[in-house]
Amino acid sequence: MTGPGPATPLGIIAGRGALPRLVAEARAQAGLPYMIVGLDGFVGDWVHDHPHEIQAITAVRRILNALATAGCTHVTMAGGVERPVVNPLKLDGKALTWLPKLLPALRKGDDALLRTVRGLLEAEGLILIGADQIVPLTWAEDVPTRAKPSADNASDVAKAEAILAALAAHDVGQGAVVHRGLTLGIETLFGTDHMLEMIGQVRSDHGGVLVKRLKQGQDRAIDMPAIGPQTVENAVRAGLDGIVIEANGVLILDRDATVAAADEAGLFIWIKP
Amino acid sequence: MTGPGPATPLGIIAGRGALPRLVAEARAQAGLPYMIVGLDGFVGDWVHDHPHEIQAITAVRRILNALATAGCTHVTMAGGVERPVVNPLKLDGKALTWLPKLLPALRKGDDALLRTVRGLLEAEGLILIGADQIVPLTWAEDVPTRAKPSADNASDVAKAEAILAALAAHDVGQGAVVHRGLTLGIETLFGTDHMLEMIGQVRSDHGGVLVKRLKQGQDRAIDMPAIGPQTVENAVRAGLDGIVIEANGVLILDRDATVAAADEAGLFIWIKP
Repeated sequence: MTGPGPATPLGIIAGRGALPRLVAEARAQAGLPYMIVGLDGFVGDWVHDHPHEIQAITAVRRILNALATAGCTHVTMAGGVERPVVNPLKLDGKALTWLPKLLPALRKGDDALLRTVRGLLEAEGLILIGADQIVPLTWAEDVPTRAKPSADNASDVAKAEAILAALAAHDVGQGAVVHRGLTLGIETLFGTDHMLEMIGQVRSDHGGVLVKRLKQGQDRAIDMPAIGPQTVENAVRAGLDGIVIEANGVLILDRDATVAAADEAGLFIWIKP
Repeated sequence: MTGPGPATPLGIIAGRGALPRLVAEARAQAGLPYMIVGLDGFVGDWVHDHPHEIQAITAVRRILNALATAGCTHVTMAGGVERPVVNPLKLDGKALTWLPKLLPALRKGDDALLRTVRGLLEAEGLILIGADQIVPLTWAEDVPTRAKPSADNASDVAKAEAILAALAAHDVGQGAVVHRGLTLGIETLFGTDHMLEMIGQVRSDHGGVLVKRLKQGQDRAIDMPAIGPQTVENAVRAGLDGIVIEANGVLILDRDATVAAADEAGLFIWIKP
């Protein structure tokens, strides 16, 4: 499925990360119309290859106008907008009418905020579609690489998963690196690439696994962690044996290139339930 | 209390970290005899200011001989020896007789290992004393710096403590850095200084707290985390507002110098139950 039919352009409100790009590419490949409103400071450079406008996250009226002008009746919100620092003086009139509902939601965390924004957009007459409806993810367990995980790797994977599960309630922990039962890294705000780079700078030995999972409470209809060829390169520099991602919880960007890079380096990739 | 009386030199089997140094300094200041057996690759350079021998961790017979030659009947094991990589070919005869008991303990983790080593030393006729008996730690809640934590800091401290508590069962997490509810760093194998350095390299804003606590299951009679003037310097470079340490769980090295460095930088230090 790639969303509503060709008569209606799909509006894509695009934040950070890989998901909005995959949504746009799915529409383009299916030959279906779409219009991206990229959020300034969040959306990546990939957006310039697609029909798009860039708007500030505070310019709610302009965002709605852009969608209306393009004739969008259906909208997808895709990509993270992790707690933006918003200057209240920059909020436009429309945003100000939203504010009484947004402020309490802001204090409750990401999920409450997203539910509120969804309700406000629907009140504008827009029909919201989850990005996961346009880029369906139905991956079974798979090790697409030539290298396969060992029993030692599996034991480190179990430990990394236990750590991520323990952190789930604390809004942290999309990734962890474990080697021989020792925890080399736990992903924080600064992301996987930063964690891997730091490990590579300091360790002198070799081995271990990176495990990436959807953070508990993270809405896979809007934002998902991703790996790609760059992640493989960083994992190699960090001396790892392999990368483990949660099936249907973590995206692979450029899957063929990612698997090829892993094969060239002798790394395994394990898509794991 | 500074251990057994002047007639009997205290043997100090010294690993990594601050605790063995504090034990030696307490004995020296009390004018009581002592003899350090520093474990090669673990003990710090401070040992050269004290009566000492350096021995490999595998040279069990030599370690026991050094203690016997010095006339030690009482022994303290102080300082971490985090899972040393031991070449079995280097184990001496005595170590080999210990091996059948050590190997199963090694697989069970640090605590089981320490209990086993303690039992083996006691079987040699040595009386074991916890380092916490020689360097007593009885700190009440205190903010010894001019800067004091704010309500925002306290809320970040609570979050960092919750993260460390969640990780306690997984043998990781002596420290965490939180700012405005966002987790900037979680300490792993590579330690506090590394974590702070990495945060300083990547962040562009300012604020937040470092919280350090004794890792659950960590034996304060043998090993304790520590902060010192260097920690303050690293915290300043990481842009933090303050450092929070667990009373009776984390050592302050050179307390006067540490507080002075914090005061100069406007950082708070909070000794917290």
